[in-house]
Amino acid sequence: MRHAVLNLEESRIREVANAGMGRSDVLAFWFGESDESTPEVVRQAAVDSLERGETFYAHNLGLPELRDAVAAYTSRLHGPVGADRIAITSGGVNALMLAVQALVDAGDEVVAVTPVWPNLTAQPCIMGARLRCVALRPQAGGAWTLDMGELLAAITPTTRLLIVNAPNNPTGWTLTAGEQQQILKHCRRTGTWILADEVYERLYYEPTANGCAPSFLDVAGPEDLLVVVQSFSKSFLMTGWRLGWLVMPPDMTQHMGKLIEFNTSCTSVFTQRAGLAALQHADQITPCVVAHLKTCRDTLVPLLQALPGVEVAPARGGMYAFFRLAGQGDSLAVAKRLVAEAGLGLAPGNAFGDEAQGWLRWCFASRDPQRLVDGVQRLKSWLAL
Amino acid sequence: MRHAVLNLEESRIREVANAGMGRSDVLAFWFGESDESTPEVVRQAAVDSLERGETFYAHNLGLPELRDAVAAYTSRLHGPVGADRIAITSGGVNALMLAVQALVDAGDEVVAVTPVWPNLTAQPCIMGARLRCVALRPQAGGAWTLDMGELLAAITPTTRLLIVNAPNNPTGWTLTAGEQQQILKHCRRTGTWILADEVYERLYYEPTANGCAPSFLDVAGPEDLLVVVQSFSKSFLMTGWRLGWLVMPPDMTQHMGKLIEFNTSCTSVFTQRAGLAALQHADQITPCVVAHLKTCRDTLVPLLQALPGVEVAPARGGMYAFFRLAGQGDSLAVAKRLVAEAGLGLAPGNAFGDEAQGWLRWCFASRDPQRLVDGVQRLKSWLAL
Repeated sequence: MRHAVLNLEESRIREVANAGMGRSDVLAFWFGESDESTPEVVRQAAVDSLERGETFYAHNLGLPELRDAVAAYTSRLHGPVGADRIAITSGGVNALMLAVQALVDAGDEVVAVTPVWPNLTAQPCIMGARLRCVALRPQAGGAWTLDMGELLAAITPTTRLLIVNAPNNPTGWTLTAGEQQQILKHCRRTGTWILADEVYERLYYEPTANGCAPSFLDVAGPEDLLVVVQSFSKSFLMTGWRLGWLVMPPDMTQHMGKLIEFNTSCTSVFTQRAGLAALQHADQITPCVVAHLKTCRDTLVPLLQALPGVEVAPARGGMYAFFRLAGQGDSLAVAKRLVAEAGLGLAPGNAFGDEAQGWLRWCFASRDPQRLVDGVQRLKSWLAL
Repeated sequence: MRHAVLNLEESRIREVANAGMGRSDVLAFWFGESDESTPEVVRQAAVDSLERGETFYAHNLGLPELRDAVAAYTSRLHGPVGADRIAITSGGVNALMLAVQALVDAGDEVVAVTPVWPNLTAQPCIMGARLRCVALRPQAGGAWTLDMGELLAAITPTTRLLIVNAPNNPTGWTLTAGEQQQILKHCRRTGTWILADEVYERLYYEPTANGCAPSFLDVAGPEDLLVVVQSFSKSFLMTGWRLGWLVMPPDMTQHMGKLIEFNTSCTSVFTQRAGLAALQHADQITPCVVAHLKTCRDTLVPLLQALPGVEVAPARGGMYAFFRLAGQGDSLAVAKRLVAEAGLGLAPGNAFGDEAQGWLRWCFASRDPQRLVDGVQRLKSWLAL
């Protein structure tokens, strides 16, 4: 086997979850998904498709009607985007991997902003790239910020690709439109592609005109070296469906079609029908999801802030409370102890980058906010031991 | 974008299909799928799962119960294979890509036996490998055979991976158990991995004890450098579901789990439930599929053989009639003319390798064999023009 693959780190999140496997008494907040099923109207669209017998191969780039619907949805949020810039993928992570395959040769330099979901840094390593990380910095109070000077200094003409996820998993950090403009301008000069993971754009709690976080699509043109990754998972409660999409320059789309053919060939028609239903009901589904998540966030964060030794800021976007626990050691060890001793399942900060050692990630997407209250009580009792 | 990706050839099969797009009068035999929907019992399992709300992330390697069922199914056909050697994937092509990601570094030498489904040769190119093809040779009468000496001479200690698809798409050529043993013995000496695409193993028309074509699993041990790719697509009429699996050495499995996490994370639970139902009903579904395909083959091939200038042998395995048409030029041009002038949709031979220039592939998986008869009539009339 390849050294690059042998050396890939196993997910430390899964390592903690495995430690709690089969224990029904654990309150689990480790994974990035809600405990709520996909809305019935969306599931029904897939059921109808299956009953019609839509079990054949589909277009590599996705059903034309779904590409059109995604283009219309994206255009409504970010200004005109043609369906010729859209490809449907088997999940957001698949979209990211396809983009990295399209852009990164072995030996190429890739810059990533961390802490970040570990998949984003693993993918360029699979392609044999050299990875350079620029770390966000935690501020007093628990919010994380970007040193723009440091990021721009790291991106040079030898940088093939910048990978940035904002709103950020796990920190909740987001880019401003001004920062996106600065990054774009710099990358135009260096000839660097931007891979923007914006799957949390709709889970944004600041007031905005379009109901979502700033996007690189707001500031870039269609010919910019920009690929934006989106997913149905978070905004439509569709994690398990494996359905996402890419927005890219129009000239790239036919090549992406080839990569989809050689990776998965296509996404199931019945899954795409569910995606179509989700978009048709976006105005009913997503605002409810976001309002509920805001309630969750605003339930959890003040309770955490009230605990001794906990430092946490309310995330501007995403679905995580990312907090520092003073006086504790290795995050992974702490997370495992929390499972074993408190029945509380959290993700260790160092799963997302070394700079997040000492931090823990709590996914607050909980159908019943009382679960969050109960979880904090468990943490509080454990801290008091 | 990467040159390796820009240079990937678009599918010539799709190029022909696109030429007939929107024409309902074309009899299409270009793609490798039946025109029959997935059996109702399989679709119902997915519907039930969706109605239960199984819309969450699943294990990277697949549902434990599906891995167990796949291991039992494989063991029944090929002797003991543990579930610790199985990973569930998002289709056979995804399984192939994951295996190539696990095994092939940029610059590595890969040997492939051609003509073959173009995805198999594209995947190592995406990973930056150097590809070397060993061509099967057509014999008088239309059957293709392997020159074993030539293949073994091509595999040296610098060969990282051998890719072989048998029963072969498009030629119907299959490996004998003796040939598999020779290849395995040679690859043990050179330290070369074998990636065996055996998705057509059940579509085999020669009498055998286990009802399938010879498999490398019959001759290799669990620690051999062997990865076998399987799919639900062909044996269970499940092309559009994107569900397959890998059989690999046990030490490889955890690493494959990481690659699945970073490529697609998992396969939808409801899709896996359908796979489980398919395996539970394998003894009802697959023999019917195979018996029907044999009828289709035995309907089509004699009719083709009776045409002037056509050379074709009945495939021992697979679902294709691969035939040479004397006195015609470029396969792609011929296939396009057949669509335009005869309303007949076939795949051009040179889509599968230069050595198959002048040949055409006819997928005989047709619910109604009369469609095949009608198709031959169109070909006959066109040839008489």
